[in-house]
Amino acid sequence: GCGERMGVPTPKQFCLVLERPLISYALQALESVHWIEDVVVAVTRENTEAMEAIIQRYQHKRVSLVESGVTRHRSIFNGLRALAEDGPDTKLSKPEVVIIHDAVRPFVEEDVLLKVVIAAKEHGAAGAIRPLVSTVISPSADGCLDHSLERARYKASEMPQAFLFDVIYKAYQQCSDYDLDFGTECLQLALQYCQTKAKLVEGSPDLWKVTYKRDLYAAEAVIKERISQQICIVKDVKEDGEHVGLLEEMLKNEFKHADVTSKALGPAAGDLPRVTLERCCSFVCVNVMNSDFHETQKLLKLLEDSHLSIFYPLVVISVHFLAYNSVSFGEKMEDLRQIRELAKEVKKRNILLYGLLICYPQEELKLQQRVGQGAAIIAALIKERNPSLAGQLLVA
Amino acid sequence: GCGERMGVPTPKQFCLVLERPLISYALQALESVHWIEDVVVAVTRENTEAMEAIIQRYQHKRVSLVESGVTRHRSIFNGLRALAEDGPDTKLSKPEVVIIHDAVRPFVEEDVLLKVVIAAKEHGAAGAIRPLVSTVISPSADGCLDHSLERARYKASEMPQAFLFDVIYKAYQQCSDYDLDFGTECLQLALQYCQTKAKLVEGSPDLWKVTYKRDLYAAEAVIKERISQQICIVKDVKEDGEHVGLLEEMLKNEFKHADVTSKALGPAAGDLPRVTLERCCSFVCVNVMNSDFHETQKLLKLLEDSHLSIFYPLVVISVHFLAYNSVSFGEKMEDLRQIRELAKEVKKRNILLYGLLICYPQEELKLQQRVGQGAAIIAALIKERNPSLAGQLLVA
Repeated sequence: GCGERMGVPTPKQFCLVLERPLISYALQALESVHWIEDVVVAVTRENTEAMEAIIQRYQHKRVSLVESGVTRHRSIFNGLRALAEDGPDTKLSKPEVVIIHDAVRPFVEEDVLLKVVIAAKEHGAAGAIRPLVSTVISPSADGCLDHSLERARYKASEMPQAFLFDVIYKAYQQCSDYDLDFGTECLQLALQYCQTKAKLVEGSPDLWKVTYKRDLYAAEAVIKERISQQICIVKDVKEDGEHVGLLEEMLKNEFKHADVTSKALGPAAGDLPRVTLERCCSFVCVNVMNSDFHETQKLLKLLEDSHLSIFYPLVVISVHFLAYNSVSFGEKMEDLRQIRELAKEVKKRNILLYGLLICYPQEELKLQQRVGQGAAIIAALIKERNPSLAGQLLVA
Repeated sequence: GCGERMGVPTPKQFCLVLERPLISYALQALESVHWIEDVVVAVTRENTEAMEAIIQRYQHKRVSLVESGVTRHRSIFNGLRALAEDGPDTKLSKPEVVIIHDAVRPFVEEDVLLKVVIAAKEHGAAGAIRPLVSTVISPSADGCLDHSLERARYKASEMPQAFLFDVIYKAYQQCSDYDLDFGTECLQLALQYCQTKAKLVEGSPDLWKVTYKRDLYAAEAVIKERISQQICIVKDVKEDGEHVGLLEEMLKNEFKHADVTSKALGPAAGDLPRVTLERCCSFVCVNVMNSDFHETQKLLKLLEDSHLSIFYPLVVISVHFLAYNSVSFGEKMEDLRQIRELAKEVKKRNILLYGLLICYPQEELKLQQRVGQGAAIIAALIKERNPSLAGQLLVA
């Protein structure tokens, strides 16, 4: 695709979402499915280098490149040729079933991929569909309404689609130049040239095609939401002090739909469970015993092992408490100022570090308010992942 | 609409975007067009009270309510009846041309409204269209592909649509119950029952219908982008001090597509031009002479007159400078701490106040960096308008 509808110069599959090209999200989604052996990407000669850089930077395995054609169908045909036994690319072998997908549909999930593949094995071809959002009409030559289609009787054809390789390859070999130049529907080629009636599979709304600038906004919001679904609270005390317990409770409220786990690293820095490091993009580090960043630095050390930061910006919020009648606010701010340097360091590794100072009064109700405000600030920082605010010290 | 596709309980036209119901944006867009006389909203009995509250809170004029029907067509028919001479609602009079629009298309602009109305006067009916994003297919009874439509030969029918009132009213009076219960296309009714061939008008992508949760995300991002298109820098010095000039310059870089104006309120608080107060949602208040919030409070006073805060959260960023070798950072933070109370006050009026302290070293290059970082923080605060961070004091 060349993304002319995006209103931006870059082809839309290369547009950055959270600093990462859209196509990398789609590749990641496909590679996360273990039974997908190879992923073939059709790319223009101008974009080949950029694509290779993306594959390397985001460590995409199983991806091969072929040169794209001047139309969608010609690009797909090139991809199929590369997979065919007599294909030029020797490290690829002809599959029983081939999936066709768009680089600009980053949210495809194993579930629907499995459904179309199983249906393809049975019917020879299958594709995801969605209900129509708008009524479809047919204009007459003079730009007036000729007729409109009954919305309920039609569907939008989406991706992914799956085919028995021999079926779709034969279809492309036999179809006309007109098909290759003006056609848009692979299922139609399978029907026309192999008499294969594709099975239609109801897909989820997330299969939508990122087409306009607003879709980029939506994609970013969806990704941010997804990586904020798991929060890990790390603290330097085993037994919950009053305000720590209160904060955890309120964070669970702020992240109703997220899985909030709590783990005491403790003075002796027990490691975080692997699974957390492999899945969690949002960390809250509560410092009670150590008033400085000792604990936070331990956490950051652990996060170095996390490969997640290649794909997503990780958020770490270092929470500190200040009793009203203790050391002055100003001094405390001075003490915590080093977070700026710390943040600058870890930002290079795609970790966004923020500080939060919760000033808590003895008075119960006020404490509730302050900690609640702190939880709201933490939620805002995690949900927005704003790099410009990394290194800031916020106050509740 | 009942918003079942949104995956949220609230009907989607009532979903909040920046704390304000989506439908209010659509009403605002229609009311901003002076030649639109009346806006009739079809609403269910359960939602009538909520709708009346919205009309009052957001000061919508020219809006009348009618009870909605069980289907889209029946709701529209009720709306037309209210406009017909013999309509029950006496304060409405029968128009020559009627526009039909969706509450969930908030970004409709005068330009396309004018186009469909002019076309309707000439052809009797007109509607906005968009190219199809996905290929449209027709499934067979067994859930397989029957045939696919050639994408280029069809269009998506969008809103707004416009009609000579007599044409569309007659069409609704004559159409069948089947049409009213299962039809989706007003243009089709005009064609079928009045032999009126609607003129099709190419619409902008912004006409899209907010349908899924992701569309709400997109709508919010689009609105935030729009209200960040104009930035007003207010300062307490006429002649630009070095760092003030530098900051303005860098803000112009951060907001490449925004119109950044700069105005010195000065010690004698010259008012801001009305037009600024009527259009601008983003203010940067640079305090050089007064190190406290004296200037900021003057600005906030002026903003009380701005009605914009009824519709959008206004952002005010109070910028302060701290020379390295002057008063200590901690003391300065103490001094500026009162911003919390100030912010709490103005938040009630939908104004989000943030503080920014720029610590500037004498050394030229470092100064550049610091001020640049300050500009980036300002840009981030304005673009995100995060209420949870209001009252925070950020440091560059």
